Formats: sequence, structure tokens, C-alpha cells
Amino acid sequence: MQRYKLTIQYDGTPYVGFQVQENGNSIQAELNKALKKMTKGQYIPVSGSGRTDSGVHANGQVVHIDYPKRIEANSLVRAMNSLLPTSIRIVSAEAVSEEFHARYSVTGKRYIYKVTTAQVQSPFLRQYELHHPFKTDVDRINKAFEAVIGEHDFTSFCSTKSDKDSKVRVVTKAEVKRNGDELIFTFEGKGFLYNMVRILVGTALQIGDGLREVEEMKQILEAMDRNAAGPTAPSHGLYLDEVFYKNFD
Amino acid sequence: MQRYKLTIQYDGTPYVGFQVQENGNSIQAELNKALKKMTKGQYIPVSGSGRTDSGVHANGQVVHIDYPKRIEANSLVRAMNSLLPTSIRIVSAEAVSEEFHARYSVTGKRYIYKVTTAQVQSPFLRQYELHHPFKTDVDRINKAFEAVIGEHDFTSFCSTKSDKDSKVRVVTKAEVKRNGDELIFTFEGKGFLYNMVRILVGTALQIGDGLREVEEMKQILEAMDRNAAGPTAPSHGLYLDEVFYKNFD
Repeated sequence: MQRYKLTIQYDGTPYVGFQVQENGNSIQAELNKALKKMTKGQYIPVSGSGRTDSGVHANGQVVHIDYPKRIEANSLVRAMNSLLPTSIRIVSAEAVSEEFHARYSVTGKRYIYKVTTAQVQSPFLRQYELHHPFKTDVDRINKAFEAVIGEHDFTSFCSTKSDKDSKVRVVTKAEVKRNGDELIFTFEGKGFLYNMVRILVGTALQIGDGLREVEEMKQILEAMDRNAAGPTAPSHGLYLDEVFYKNFD
Repeated sequence: MQRYKLTIQYDGTPYVGFQVQENGNSIQAELNKALKKMTKGQYIPVSGSGRTDSGVHANGQVVHIDYPKRIEANSLVRAMNSLLPTSIRIVSAEAVSEEFHARYSVTGKRYIYKVTTAQVQSPFLRQYELHHPFKTDVDRINKAFEAVIGEHDFTSFCSTKSDKDSKVRVVTKAEVKRNGDELIFTFEGKGFLYNMVRILVGTALQIGDGLREVEEMKQILEAMDRNAAGPTAPSHGLYLDEVFYKNFD
């Protein structure tokens, strides 16, 4: 048996989310199906770094599997990609020790959120970025994000459906950059609460559009009340961009 | 009544093609539906510059409509986009004289065809470019395309399903450019036969991959036999990029 760390890209559009669910097809279920074909019917558990919601994309989701035999990493990549739907791609595989765990070894994550402010959105990007045709001021947003960076109780930026006890999280990066009509938000931190990035984006856009004051970001955090924050931005602009681990070499 | 020229982008993935057909949803049917809502039930014919096949995209398809009243071009764009699915976007509208006809006034068209030669294709581009993970030599293709430019009988590069009498067409541009792993083919001409661009690409890739000699392009043209040419490249890499008209101002 050999443990492999797999880095995975996926288009979340056709899936109910990363994790196996009864109400539809998931990325995890497709990975299980491909592995079952490769091992002639054996069930190989797939452990992900964490869930992603329905419609959320990944540039660099990470999972680990315990494969029954040691094979060349590139052969594993090729075999899995030949069996997976083209909406899910294995970008790389790496043999790792059993100390590595895709979820418990995580030291941090980066999410990005894509927005276009163009009047007319490209039909080719409609599933891959939020259409927000307004004169959003990124300087106001970046100023507001200063209140978000650091260790805070993010209750206001967490779905009320979350069952997590502590809502305290550490955000190490929160910023937005404009490139023509495109806005790219970047968030890095040790961990994020349920819908946290999407509520941060929904609130930030209100500030950028002048519907809320820059100073409100701090007040919203202090309120510790989901109703104080803005709306949850739609899932299709969100990407799990990279999962960070300490070096296991 | 006022005639308008509309320039349209669409993602061809969810459609049976541009033209209304009984076996599924078309871009034309969606345009008809939106216009019907705007005119409280009136049927407004939509005349396109030509058909595009199932799965083929457009950056700049052109249609004309005769709208019952004169309205501001920008209002027409906004109203139609608010009623159309996001896979179809009106990019611009222009009031034109009744001498303008989207099909009969065409002086030329540009098609582009997108290919990635990357080993692993981005899941976000799987419906928008052909995955062709080979060491394709673009210099060989561009040399072969010299035989294609000019006026020729393109019977070898035309689907046998075509009902056109004359297979003589004038190609003014045929080239491919490499940008990293991405190949972009560009074709310009007065008109193209059914599947002509896709058969040209399918044949060109065989030449670029070394499966055929550069000189064969000329021999295939002279054979005037569809069986002499290569395969029809898949629809999802093809874009109707621009339709040219003489100046109607």
C-alpha cells in the first residue's frame, strides 16, 4: 500500500459539491468511481482537504488516497484522467508518507473569487465569474479588508447553518485587484468558516459600490451577527486555489 | 418599423445550432422568444448571416431584425440581454437601412479554431478548445496552408451532406499561431462550405503532427474527394469570429 497526495482541478458547475451526497453527483464520487475501475472493484477512500459547495470550482484541491500498490506518479495521473470526466483533472500526484493527511495536515488555504464589472458578460465565462456591472471601487474594499486581516471571531461572516463551535479564524491575506473589467479577490488563512469567503465578497462589493461605508467592515465583525453582513456572493465565482501543507519531505 | 443589425456572442454548447430545428433548442429560437416578450406576442423573424452547427460558438454572429418601432440601440441591447439566457449575449445593435441584409450583404467571414496541446487540459476550457496533447509543428501547417489560400474547388474539404452546387470558394487567410500550449487557427474568406473549417483543421493537425506531408494539402485539394482529407475536427473548438459587410453608412 502506498499513500498518494493528488492535486485536482475541477469545474464545480455540474456537481452538488466536493463531498459524496445522496442528492446528486459529486467530485468525490467520480474519484471513487475512477479508482474502482483501476483496482478492479476495490473501494478506495478519498480524503479531501475539505468540502467545496455546489458550483464552487478548484484550481488546487488536494486529496490523499491509499493505493493498493506503488505505481509511478505520472502513470497514476494518466490512468485517473483517462477514466474521469473532463470536468475533473488530476494535475499532479506525489507518493507521500502515512504521516501526510489531506485534511489534518493542512496549514492554510487560498481562495480566489472572480468578478467581472463589464456591462455585458462573456457567455463563455458565465459559469466562472460573477457578473457585477457596477463601478466598484477596489481601493475602498482594500481599505475595509484591513479590519479583516488577523485573528477575529467571524460569526458575522459565517452561514447560520454552520455547526462549528468556535468562529475564531486567522486571515493572513484579504485583497482585491482590478485588471480592466475583472476583479480578483484573494483570501488566505489557516481555515475558513462555512460561506465565509462568499459573505466577505458580498459585503465587500457593497462597500466598493458605495452602499456601505468602509468603516462598517469593522462594525460588522464586532456585531457577531450574520444579519449585520452583506449577502452571500454566488458560488460560481469562487475557486479553492491552493491548499498549503508543511513540508513532508 | 426599423431594421436593426445585431452582433451576438454565444456559447454553442447547450444548443443544436444557430438555426431553429425540431430536435432541440437553438440560438434563433431563443432570440425569437426574447423578441416575442418585448413586442407582447408579435413574431419577429431573425435573419442570421448563416448557420452554425451544434456546439459551435460565436464571438460575432450577425443577425438583422425588423422591429415594429424605432428604439434607442442601447435600450434594445439591454432589453434583449435581460430576457435572453446568459449563454447568448447581444454585444451591440445598430439601426440600419432596409438595404442591409445579414445574409445577402455579407462580404466575408472570419472563423477561429482553438486547440490546446497541453498534456492536461483545464477543466474550465473543455467546452471551448480542442484537447490535442501532441507536439504539433505550426510551421509545417502554415506552409501547407499556402496551398489553401486563393480560389479553389474545396470539394475535399466539404461534408458530403452539403447540397451546394459549386464547391469553389475564395480563402484570403489561413494560418495558425502558437501561444505557449495554445494554437489559434484563423480562416478568412468570402464564404465557407459545410464543415470546411473543421476539415481543414483536422487535416492541418495531421500535417503538424507529422502523420502527413506538407505537400499533401495541395494533393488533397486536387483530389476533389472528401475521403482524401483528414477528419472533421470537433465543433467545440470552432468560433464564428466576425462577419464582414461593406459599409452601409
